[in-house]
Amino acid sequence: MSSPQIPTEQWAQVVEKTGGPVVYKKIPVAKPGPDEVLVNIKYSGVCHTDLHAVNGDWPLATKLPLVGGHEGAGVVVARGELVKDVQIGDHAGVKWINGSCLNCSFCQQSDEPLCAEALLSGYTVDGTFQQYCIAKAAHVARIPKECNLEAIAPVLCAGITVYKGLKESGVRPGQTVAIVGAGGGLGSLACQYAKAMGLDIIAIDGGEEKREMTKKLGASHYVDFTQSKNLVSDVKAATSDGLGPHAVILVAVNEKPFQQAAEYVRPRGTVVAIGLPAGAYLRAPVFESVIKMITIKGSYVGNRRDSAEAIEFFRRGLIVAPYKTCGLSELNKVYELMHEGKIAGRYVVDTSK
Amino acid sequence: MSSPQIPTEQWAQVVEKTGGPVVYKKIPVAKPGPDEVLVNIKYSGVCHTDLHAVNGDWPLATKLPLVGGHEGAGVVVARGELVKDVQIGDHAGVKWINGSCLNCSFCQQSDEPLCAEALLSGYTVDGTFQQYCIAKAAHVARIPKECNLEAIAPVLCAGITVYKGLKESGVRPGQTVAIVGAGGGLGSLACQYAKAMGLDIIAIDGGEEKREMTKKLGASHYVDFTQSKNLVSDVKAATSDGLGPHAVILVAVNEKPFQQAAEYVRPRGTVVAIGLPAGAYLRAPVFESVIKMITIKGSYVGNRRDSAEAIEFFRRGLIVAPYKTCGLSELNKVYELMHEGKIAGRYVVDTSK
Amino acid sequence: MSSPQIPTEQWAQVVEKTGGPVVYKKIPVAKPGPDEVLVNIKYSGVCHTDLHAVNGDWPLATKLPLVGGHEGAGVVVARGELVKDVQIGDHAGVKWINGSCLNCSFCQQSDEPLCAEALLSGYTVDGTFQQYCIAKAAHVARIPKECNLEAIAPVLCAGITVYKGLKESGVRPGQTVAIVGAGGGLGSLACQYAKAMGLDIIAIDGGEEKREMTKKLGASHYVDFTQSKNLVSDVKAATSDGLGPHAVILVAVNEKPFQQAAEYVRPRGTVVAIGLPAGAYLRAPVFESVIKMITIKGSYVGNRRDSAEAIEFFRRGLIVAPYKTCGLSELNKVYELMHEGKIAGRYVVDTSK
Amino acid sequence: MSSPQIPTEQWAQVVEKTGGPVVYKKIPVAKPGPDEVLVNIKYSGVCHTDLHAVNGDWPLATKLPLVGGHEGAGVVVARGELVKDVQIGDHAGVKWINGSCLNCSFCQQSDEPLCAEALLSGYTVDGTFQQYCIAKAAHVARIPKECNLEAIAPVLCAGITVYKGLKESGVRPGQTVAIVGAGGGLGSLACQYAKAMGLDIIAIDGGEEKREMTKKLGASHYVDFTQSKNLVSDVKAATSDGLGPHAVILVAVNEKPFQQAAEYVRPRGTVVAIGLPAGAYLRAPVFESVIKMITIKGSYVGNRRDSAEAIEFFRRGLIVAPYKTCGLSELNKVYELMHEGKIAGRYVVDTSK
Repeated sequence: MSSPQIPTEQWAQVVEKTGGPVVYKKIPVAKPGPDEVLVNIKYSGVCHTDLHAVNGDWPLATKLPLVGGHEGAGVVVARGELVKDVQIGDHAGVKWINGSCLNCSFCQQSDEPLCAEALLSGYTVDGTFQQYCIAKAAHVARIPKECNLEAIAPVLCAGITVYKGLKESGVRPGQTVAIVGAGGGLGSLACQYAKAMGLDIIAIDGGEEKREMTKKLGASHYVDFTQSKNLVSDVKAATSDGLGPHAVILVAVNEKPFQQAAEYVRPRGTVVAIGLPAGAYLRAPVFESVIKMITIKGSYVGNRRDSAEAIEFFRRGLIVAPYKTCGLSELNKVYELMHEGKIAGRYVVDTSK
Repeated sequence: MSSPQIPTEQWAQVVEKTGGPVVYKKIPVAKPGPDEVLVNIKYSGVCHTDLHAVNGDWPLATKLPLVGGHEGAGVVVARGELVKDVQIGDHAGVKWINGSCLNCSFCQQSDEPLCAEALLSGYTVDGTFQQYCIAKAAHVARIPKECNLEAIAPVLCAGITVYKGLKESGVRPGQTVAIVGAGGGLGSLACQYAKAMGLDIIAIDGGEEKREMTKKLGASHYVDFTQSKNLVSDVKAATSDGLGPHAVILVAVNEKPFQQAAEYVRPRGTVVAIGLPAGAYLRAPVFESVIKMITIKGSYVGNRRDSAEAIEFFRRGLIVAPYKTCGLSELNKVYELMHEGKIAGRYVVDTSK
Repeated sequence: MSSPQIPTEQWAQVVEKTGGPVVYKKIPVAKPGPDEVLVNIKYSGVCHTDLHAVNGDWPLATKLPLVGGHEGAGVVVARGELVKDVQIGDHAGVKWINGSCLNCSFCQQSDEPLCAEALLSGYTVDGTFQQYCIAKAAHVARIPKECNLEAIAPVLCAGITVYKGLKESGVRPGQTVAIVGAGGGLGSLACQYAKAMGLDIIAIDGGEEKREMTKKLGASHYVDFTQSKNLVSDVKAATSDGLGPHAVILVAVNEKPFQQAAEYVRPRGTVVAIGLPAGAYLRAPVFESVIKMITIKGSYVGNRRDSAEAIEFFRRGLIVAPYKTCGLSELNKVYELMHEGKIAGRYVVDTSK
Repeated sequence: MSSPQIPTEQWAQVVEKTGGPVVYKKIPVAKPGPDEVLVNIKYSGVCHTDLHAVNGDWPLATKLPLVGGHEGAGVVVARGELVKDVQIGDHAGVKWINGSCLNCSFCQQSDEPLCAEALLSGYTVDGTFQQYCIAKAAHVARIPKECNLEAIAPVLCAGITVYKGLKESGVRPGQTVAIVGAGGGLGSLACQYAKAMGLDIIAIDGGEEKREMTKKLGASHYVDFTQSKNLVSDVKAATSDGLGPHAVILVAVNEKPFQQAAEYVRPRGTVVAIGLPAGAYLRAPVFESVIKMITIKGSYVGNRRDSAEAIEFFRRGLIVAPYKTCGLSELNKVYELMHEGKIAGRYVVDTSK
């Protein structure tokens, strides 16, 4: 079943060989398999992961040629014969987890991101830097029609991921969370989700601009790592009893905070690693970790339920993610800015341009 | 209130200066404060921590002169005027946590071991290597009269500690736990608690003697680190689906397993550090920790409820801890054996000798 | 230890015989025992429970003569010799749980309200309708000095109780809670705590005035039980997917909602009973309860940690409880209004008048 | 894909009209759809639910004509083209939940039994009282080849269901569970799972035969409701501290225990309803439920992960379910015995006879 207007060709950004560049060209539109849908992508967020996929500098190989992208928002235009609960015309999101087996011990316990057979959009299958993208019907995110497709795009990976991390931390409303890298793309979304979840926020980042920004996003305290003479005591001092935050969310891009967080987290508190600095290690002394009974854990992307919940926060108007938009044809420029570290917030590409 | 026969003097082993030796001598019997009890210690287990207290090689200073010991089982012979729920004649255990404020945010959430004011038996207050020991009434362990005081002594620290660690791991009946150092003092108790908790056990240790011992204690698999060519794959292979154990309990005395466990624990699994090798670090790669969503945490000694639960398992006959007994006067010999690494299982001292 | 100005006599409202009336008279000021403090009560909230204590219509007998009251806020003026962590001059709250054994299996797991030896302020021990009240140091609530003692009084029972109920429901930020009796004294506080906890609120009550009030307090939906033709479907319709709220908080004063909530709560959802209508029963069909896997539970008052958390929400300015104030001497008038059902919100008495 | 020997016709027991009888006759063998498998059923357990399906006395209508049965164990002989992770020749179980949408909010959180689109074996789709049965590949239970197909059949519904109820109770190893109806079909399996989970068991049932039986199955206490003069105090007395069991599992077939359990469960304890006596109600006084903070909840059948876990306990040899076997052709006789209440344990039918 499909809408009548699906073209046979479309514009896409294609990685033809590892190391790039991406080539803006016309390619055929794929047809959905029996359990798949075809989504007419309107907007797609651009993530550092996409640059890793171009450069091939992660241990996991990509498909080639590859259409990248995994934060795509659009309209369902076709579906396979087994698909019943997604309708033509529905708004849908294509996420990092494009599909999974739905059957292994991890899928059975709602941990689809841990599925060994998971398909990864824009990495092991073609992603959202094209006008028409295939995804498993069971995994596309359902986007209510009242949601702006352009604004919701960055929520589909960055938003879901930080929301998941906050859930995994076990922190409860009224407790304090420190967000390391609070002024960045993930961090700014983390601040907004944390606020919506009733948490008291200590933003950790560098510079006055980020102090202002994180304050607007809901942080009640700011620790500037470029100015602090003793980061550990400054973070502790930002809690009302001086014992440190109940949880720490690590969305930083360098290794140091991954090893420092265990020093300022409250006894019985939890440090959640989300960001993936290349070659970085978690590290903490056994003695203090035992005596303080701290927890250090990794949190990957959200499952389907986390995704629906993260979108519901957005639908209720509680999440405002800063972003800039340009045409899909300009993707190379976005990558250049990203490579140069010049992006504040998130870029979104418009597939019609 | 007190029983009539309390002497004014008693035998004790006293650390008079840091570095030792311990001196076997007569000292006065103390009187309990209003919220305290006096326990006539019959037997006390000997723990590595006691040797650290003698040597003063931990960052925390001991009181001096010091009576060590924190695994004491005996009979209550006196109590302060505020004490209502401990009776003269009750059997009681003096544990590592001798007392706590019962009022700070940690005590309020049943995490008395995290109390900044906690009194530590045989370390910051006099302990169980004497015939009459003071403890806060709220913290003495209640020992049912049907329990053998000699056999239960090692449960009062080692048993409670490993039971707590198993609880903290979050592992459920039917799931698999790997115990690293399964043949040692803590490890042998961990095997028995794990079995009583319905867990499938992978014992990790070295040598054929420990293979036999851990099998008797309830382990269904054994991985010999002295023989294994690939410990990580051998541990995984010992689980029915090859994905690795749901939890890892670290009671080892060297650092390597604390860094290796993250490699073989199942995705979504938990590594619990309990043992305290000097100067050791927890360490795990950020990328794999995030992608597998693993948890690494420290677990200290149990709280009062954990202690009561650990004793209840013993009362029901489910915990049999191997131990040897000698006189309190022979404590120096036990320390020598301990220093030489020659103790299998636990030593218990009889305060009447 | 005490401040010098403590008088030997004070004003109090005394229940001299069951059935009342309360008599405003001078009585002696008590002296704290070794583990107690004496609090100079400045303000006390008035609760329906106080009227039950006067009338003696609950199955549990009160002490006689009795000073009622259990929502008292004031200043610590004396303390017993064992008390270390409460200082003279500290601001403190006297709650329903005046003291507990701190030692039974319930106290050990932070469930002090379940302690069989718990002392109940204004019921089994004298309460806060006097100028100087005794309480166990371990149980007085710590009130930061930046908090207004008049405004915080109703939080000390009503606020803590609804916060506890919301925690017990297990509902997470972003999920939906229905509050039955949302416009009443407990209900209005429940709305504010629910909002601060990031919950979506369906207020259930009667009349347009309560519609307006609950909207201001943070509810996103209102179901008027006096107008609804089908309450069950109206409540379900107020959730975005029509499946009903994740939790229901019952602070109503009649029995019907306690039996109806199971019909509209979401499958896997939780119904929490807090209110105590006389002689009421929880009731639900076995078949539907099993097939929908619903949970029905009772939630009593908070423990010490819940209390501290509820106060912290107040300190951060997130809880505004509507109340009226009159003199302690006018307590009988408040009881008359209460008996006639004419009180909107909470009454607070000023002990200086 | 399929094995070559699948016949076109097979023997089955067919309900041709509501009210019965079941007719033993030859019917065609169905072909699996793209996401389905065909299982050559070797053995099937017989459950009271099957009799309800024949009689049509539940509010939910069955398909007609209907092949009943939902505890089938056999061999996969064909699969649809989308099925990858079930192989021809695998041993598999067909359970009550034959399939579900895998996509709704309940399926997304691993609560497939709550899926509004769930297919019910032997009720809304044909079940296991035939030689070849269709089921959704995602939902068939994986049975290790070392497991006896005849003995495991009753585990596939009764075993999974009681295991799920024990999990839902939240009871931890070492705690006490009361099982009401412990000597029946569900109850006897509940005893064995509870024992394997490290629980202390109070069996409640009637008569000396069941006392002996439940003792063998692992219960440490027995309360005979036909002899007890005060069941509530007798159950409490069976716990070491007299406070009552931490959880109560209701697998009884009449209403009374569903209302009585709240009286003897420990404060903070949980009552889990599993059995479905016709027209029965859960009922408990609000006052005591609140003051004791008890939880009452319904537990339906297990999800896919619960099923795998329940089977793993069986594989490890920890679950021995008493059963009798007869031919599929004799199903009517089994129903007669069931109607007369003459079955002890479970009946299994052999589809080859």
